[in-house]
Amino acid sequence: MSGSQRRRRAGRPAGPPADLATAPKKTKANKPAVPEATGIGVTGDIIDRLGQPPALPAGGLRVVALGGIGEIGRNMTVFEYDGKLLIVDCGVLFPEDQQPGVDLILPDFGYIEDRMDDVEAVVLTHGHEDHIGAVPFLLRMRADIAVVGSRFTLALVAAKCREHRLRPKLVQVVEGDRQDFGGFDCEFFAVNHSIPDAVAVAIRTGAGMVLHTGDIKLDQLPLDNRLTDLAGFSRLGDEGVDLFLVDSTNAEVPGFVTPERDIGGVLDTVIGKARQRVIVASFASHVHRIQQIVDVAHRHGRRVTFVGRSMVRNMQIAQELGYLSVPEGVIVDMDTAATLPDHRLVLISTGSQGEPLSALSRMARGEHRQINIRADDLVVLASSLIPGNENSVFAVVNGLAKRGATVVTQASAKVHVSGHASAGELLYLYNAVRPSNAMPVHGEWRHLRANAALAEATGVPSDRIVLAEDGVVVDLVDGRAQITGRVPVGHVYVDGLSVGDVGDSTLSDRLVLGEGGFIAITVAVEASTGRPVSAPTVSGRGFSDDPEALSEAVVLVEKALTELANEGVTDAHRIAQGIRRTVGRWVAGKYRRRPMIVPNVIAVGEDD
Amino acid sequence: MSGSQRRRRAGRPAGPPADLATAPKKTKANKPAVPEATGIGVTGDIIDRLGQPPALPAGGLRVVALGGIGEIGRNMTVFEYDGKLLIVDCGVLFPEDQQPGVDLILPDFGYIEDRMDDVEAVVLTHGHEDHIGAVPFLLRMRADIAVVGSRFTLALVAAKCREHRLRPKLVQVVEGDRQDFGGFDCEFFAVNHSIPDAVAVAIRTGAGMVLHTGDIKLDQLPLDNRLTDLAGFSRLGDEGVDLFLVDSTNAEVPGFVTPERDIGGVLDTVIGKARQRVIVASFASHVHRIQQIVDVAHRHGRRVTFVGRSMVRNMQIAQELGYLSVPEGVIVDMDTAATLPDHRLVLISTGSQGEPLSALSRMARGEHRQINIRADDLVVLASSLIPGNENSVFAVVNGLAKRGATVVTQASAKVHVSGHASAGELLYLYNAVRPSNAMPVHGEWRHLRANAALAEATGVPSDRIVLAEDGVVVDLVDGRAQITGRVPVGHVYVDGLSVGDVGDSTLSDRLVLGEGGFIAITVAVEASTGRPVSAPTVSGRGFSDDPEALSEAVVLVEKALTELANEGVTDAHRIAQGIRRTVGRWVAGKYRRRPMIVPNVIAVGEDD
Repeated sequence: MSGSQRRRRAGRPAGPPADLATAPKKTKANKPAVPEATGIGVTGDIIDRLGQPPALPAGGLRVVALGGIGEIGRNMTVFEYDGKLLIVDCGVLFPEDQQPGVDLILPDFGYIEDRMDDVEAVVLTHGHEDHIGAVPFLLRMRADIAVVGSRFTLALVAAKCREHRLRPKLVQVVEGDRQDFGGFDCEFFAVNHSIPDAVAVAIRTGAGMVLHTGDIKLDQLPLDNRLTDLAGFSRLGDEGVDLFLVDSTNAEVPGFVTPERDIGGVLDTVIGKARQRVIVASFASHVHRIQQIVDVAHRHGRRVTFVGRSMVRNMQIAQELGYLSVPEGVIVDMDTAATLPDHRLVLISTGSQGEPLSALSRMARGEHRQINIRADDLVVLASSLIPGNENSVFAVVNGLAKRGATVVTQASAKVHVSGHASAGELLYLYNAVRPSNAMPVHGEWRHLRANAALAEATGVPSDRIVLAEDGVVVDLVDGRAQITGRVPVGHVYVDGLSVGDVGDSTLSDRLVLGEGGFIAITVAVEASTGRPVSAPTVSGRGFSDDPEALSEAVVLVEKALTELANEGVTDAHRIAQGIRRTVGRWVAGKYRRRPMIVPNVIAVGEDD
Repeated sequence: MSGSQRRRRAGRPAGPPADLATAPKKTKANKPAVPEATGIGVTGDIIDRLGQPPALPAGGLRVVALGGIGEIGRNMTVFEYDGKLLIVDCGVLFPEDQQPGVDLILPDFGYIEDRMDDVEAVVLTHGHEDHIGAVPFLLRMRADIAVVGSRFTLALVAAKCREHRLRPKLVQVVEGDRQDFGGFDCEFFAVNHSIPDAVAVAIRTGAGMVLHTGDIKLDQLPLDNRLTDLAGFSRLGDEGVDLFLVDSTNAEVPGFVTPERDIGGVLDTVIGKARQRVIVASFASHVHRIQQIVDVAHRHGRRVTFVGRSMVRNMQIAQELGYLSVPEGVIVDMDTAATLPDHRLVLISTGSQGEPLSALSRMARGEHRQINIRADDLVVLASSLIPGNENSVFAVVNGLAKRGATVVTQASAKVHVSGHASAGELLYLYNAVRPSNAMPVHGEWRHLRANAALAEATGVPSDRIVLAEDGVVVDLVDGRAQITGRVPVGHVYVDGLSVGDVGDSTLSDRLVLGEGGFIAITVAVEASTGRPVSAPTVSGRGFSDDPEALSEAVVLVEKALTELANEGVTDAHRIAQGIRRTVGRWVAGKYRRRPMIVPNVIAVGEDD
């Protein structure tokens, strides 16, 4: 921190003296025995040891993230003041390798499930899945919660709720609006991001003012001329922001995000040079990106066809609401597209993350019903490469390259910019808002720490920076935000139609099965003697292609059964244990593998 | 291609006129009905349709990659001339998500298994696993094959073979050596890479000269002053290189790789500023990187401890052979390290790719027996992030960050440079070698195409660029390299102790089981009537945490069994099919999931 920053900081409104007195006393020489749980030096060990929080003092504001801190996705923050709750965002997280077979991960609503009647509203900062995807699941618990958001956000929520056969109570707001929801006085501010109509929300309560950025960047030349309202944030800063929740996603990235507008020129060059068909993959909600692709296509005399269910749906909404502006006749359907010469067409497709069922993946595998990739096709991935998707995306790129297409990605041309503020932009935010307390959100630990360092560099005192994660309870009392405990939050998995029945035990079984398959041993024994009444069957799935791989095991199982019967063991459970042990040892010794061993012992001839 | 390049190219030795006459005639207006299988315009569709190659004409050289083209890893190329075979490299590939539970993937030796006696030697370009890892498996097929390589390469091969209880016949060579192996006249050239002592090999046969780069870059200020021998390549170019096999790994990356030497200064700054303990993770074979870390540690008065089995082993070999030079007393063991103050220590560890069992992963999870990460610890990942490893690596970084450590990666400081030539360096190579035919190797399709474009840009005629993949047969006849067919090559999986018994069927079962678990239904029926003799048991693993999830299925199975028995069905297989259908339909309808359905029908009371 420079001297001038220090001086400037000195002028910011500080908490009342009483506030400082309540903080644990410590000097550099004499650290407290119980480590302080708030501040930039807090470590996960300290957080892991937190217990249940005390009751929230009267006049205090409690903040608990049920998702989105310590991870990227399923953003959901619960604010409590005077017995009432306000929720900001309610998104989903997409699973990783360690959560096989799971479709979605929801925030854990357990913390609020008994208090649904206290919920005054759910405020949505923008329409991305990681901010709105869990709304239908929340509404299943109470259907009439006010769902607050901007026009485009609510249009996407409404479409999603229709699929879930829900009719949410929508409350549309626009930047500049100020509206009270049961004691939470909310003011909305325009911010830019990779979807139109994103907002930040300032929440005023008797405990002070909180500013939550949602996802944010500071494009200074946005395509829709809708700037992030830094002037508005500065006014809030003048008034005094007690707690600032800030997007951490790109806090590790130095510098500034290139304006979205600059991509238009790059696309013009890339698409302008193409001789044949052009296919551009991007995110189905990135209206401004799509707008630029459409404009470039039109400029080069090409028609545009949208490919992929979510792309078609979202672009229809965007056109109807005026967020996407398309000259008459430019958009054509797939059948018309099939009649056009290749050099008169741009396909705009989903599948930029290599999703195996997407149109683009099918093209790459040569399995798309209507679109056959040919040499000279140009494919542009105008998208980021989300960590964890590398293998899928590169499989698509390789499939396209093998078929002879030229593939342009953000690695070879500037065809993507991030929707999240880089470190340089975050510094502007901190300096505009000048918060008393800062709390990095929307990030994994590496992002949170990087964001905390930026807060500190702009002069937020290091003990006023709250490093938390999902479930950590942060109380804003007398102008000071402090960690006071934690509440249990788990991962709630959606797999197919049901929610929550797939848990850690099932996932751990799936991981074992996925790595090594299983060996099933079925024996029917006489209930009274434990002696087998037929030969045991030993079969494996996911274990070996060799049909003889398990033949030795049959003999071992027979031997084990005889020994158990000779010992007088008749209990089916104990027989199963004996078989599991025998086969487990054998397979570990012979193959050095750990398949799941599944004994089935059927006792026949029982009286019951 | 510029005019001057064209002119220069015109001077290169062209194939004899007869050669051109044998090529299929084509004009721009009149393309051949059977598409040409060689050249930059070749697509995967054409390659996929290739059949068995014709016999190799007398005096021709055949080149077949059993691994390493169309993928990155398990590099192995077989050269055939006059009935004899020469193998260049014999490496392993590490599995991806679609190959669960697999430890290693080997090249498919099927193409040569009946011709092991014709193998004159296996030449190893350097000591990385993807070039030497499958040598023990090759030697299991014939133990006395000459294993040819440089000093450091052979030291690593010898250590590996000791673990496999093999005593290979090692033939040590050094750059400048020229040695004949049964008609393959091999000359070795120094190249630099991310491991010491790498070589390229020029192979002269009656069919012409082949130059294989192995893995290569052109560091112009290498730490060991051992330059890639561009002058030697130029001399070969003067003599006439008929076929040039070139590393494609970084062909998509523009420009030039930064000298390894530059990392030293960055490490000095990063480690010099550290106040507490420093942990650096890197590749266990990257001797020059480790050398620089050791030098920096020593300069700052810190001792060094090697952590991780392969790091300890390789650094001992490197020290003994003089590739790593360490001042007396700088290296200490872990017990001594534990007695040193934190600011007097640098740990150099494996685990830079987030391997879950590595020392670094255990530190990140707080599970390492001797090393507890604390706030103020500095962790440096002086390594690349290999695609596919992002989730594992970020999990480690987040774990360290949560514990309070500062983590420096190549994203935040220049602590890593690649070992593979970028596009700019590849242009130097093509211009030095001036090959008659070029064949990109060591890459996925996206890399191969990028490399082919570089070859073309330097003037290699587009129809003399061979785009192939594993199993594709390339014949060099009369100075022209052409694709003549393909031979079957599969993936050979090592899982635990056995090789090859895990195949596509097992992997496909593992993928199903990993996604959805299984439901096992066991019924004992009377052999003569098909009627159940006890209640069916229905149990799932990896399906649901809810103990009641499958209770409905029991009733359905009972009903199905009764119906089948009423229809007179007694065949166990048909009963099993009926059960599978019943339960499969039920679970798809109720849960919209696809677990594996595993019926076990035991017929009791049979006469046999």
